[in-house]
Amino acid sequence: MHAEEPIRPVRAKRLPRAVRERQILDAAVAVFSRLGFHAASMDEISEVAGISKPMLYAYLGSKEDLFATCIRREATLMIEAIGDGVRPGEAPDVQLWCGLRAFFGFVGEHRASWQVLHRQASSQGGPFAQELADMRGRAISLVAALLMHSADSQGVGHASRDTEGLAAALVGAGESLADWWLDHPEESAAAVASRLMNLVWMGFGDLVEGRVWHPPAKG
Amino acid sequence: MHAEEPIRPVRAKRLPRAVRERQILDAAVAVFSRLGFHAASMDEISEVAGISKPMLYAYLGSKEDLFATCIRREATLMIEAIGDGVRPGEAPDVQLWCGLRAFFGFVGEHRASWQVLHRQASSQGGPFAQELADMRGRAISLVAALLMHSADSQGVGHASRDTEGLAAALVGAGESLADWWLDHPEESAAAVASRLMNLVWMGFGDLVEGRVWHPPAKG
Repeated sequence: MHAEEPIRPVRAKRLPRAVRERQILDAAVAVFSRLGFHAASMDEISEVAGISKPMLYAYLGSKEDLFATCIRREATLMIEAIGDGVRPGEAPDVQLWCGLRAFFGFVGEHRASWQVLHRQASSQGGPFAQELADMRGRAISLVAALLMHSADSQGVGHASRDTEGLAAALVGAGESLADWWLDHPEESAAAVASRLMNLVWMGFGDLVEGRVWHPPAKG
Repeated sequence: MHAEEPIRPVRAKRLPRAVRERQILDAAVAVFSRLGFHAASMDEISEVAGISKPMLYAYLGSKEDLFATCIRREATLMIEAIGDGVRPGEAPDVQLWCGLRAFFGFVGEHRASWQVLHRQASSQGGPFAQELADMRGRAISLVAALLMHSADSQGVGHASRDTEGLAAALVGAGESLADWWLDHPEESAAAVASRLMNLVWMGFGDLVEGRVWHPPAKG
């Protein structure tokens, strides 16, 4: 390698496709979340990703394709983070707490992802609305499976339809609270997670009488 | 009036503008919810409303304008229904129960409204996403005010930021459960409302131990 050669193009050639795609998607999520779908340009995304525009199109297709791929990837990362956060051996309240911490932790650390997933995708509509609906369906299935598992371990029978409705309510509550959090970023992930934990574990019935839930010391 | 005269045009002329607009909006909500925004045509809406297409445009503007007006009207009707359902003199659990019953009662009786409000509007995006976001903001403010009032009446102080976060979570839970209900129409409004009531009043903590909330006999 000659010292005068520019470094980026050389490294670019050596990158495996998967790594290159991840870089492009990171850049695209950052640009989409900052500017929104319409104002974001393929010029800007290719510049941030450090790749030529023709290569950008060759790798990930049109701006619409790229946006849909962003939604799918961010949704998958989020659902994996929640799944990883849950500890199946723990008591049901600790499991729920870990799941909520993982969710709000993900949103807090990946605000750009959440912005793209939730706000940008829902303000675009069309095919992206379907991606979003699919993501919600996956999140509801994951939460329903966790609730069923938790109820089983307590010896409490739940009809699966009941559990699915509760899971839908819980996912909606988390989604809405995370959206509210975007406008109140001064709160910590733990504080926001604790608010939802108290709502869904203790319920207003306990809260209005001053009984609150506290995480275990190591949680 | 001559017996041979067609009846509709004569009656049409006599209708005050507000009544005529309501008829058009009823027709538009029915058509939009059945066919979706794109497939719905101004021809079909004018036919269902029993009004000529030029009159339809003169009264309510373009299809986009008409759809936005539908969203605003349905949102206003829904928020009024919830406000009317709440009985401020009652105990907090009964107030919450009445609010949830009013919400799910509205969705159950006006499935077309909910379909337009929630599914069609969110799958369209663009300016309709803004209408939806405004509606959610109004619903969250209403719920936060009810929660504050209820906490005050119990002598429990709540920071307004706390209350707003809880209200956002509760609205999201209701919205998501109502959406789930569209796909499970065999459930009654009372059963769906009771599920959310138990989640947010009793909490999972009580539910996993088999303690559930029952409405008062007259509720």
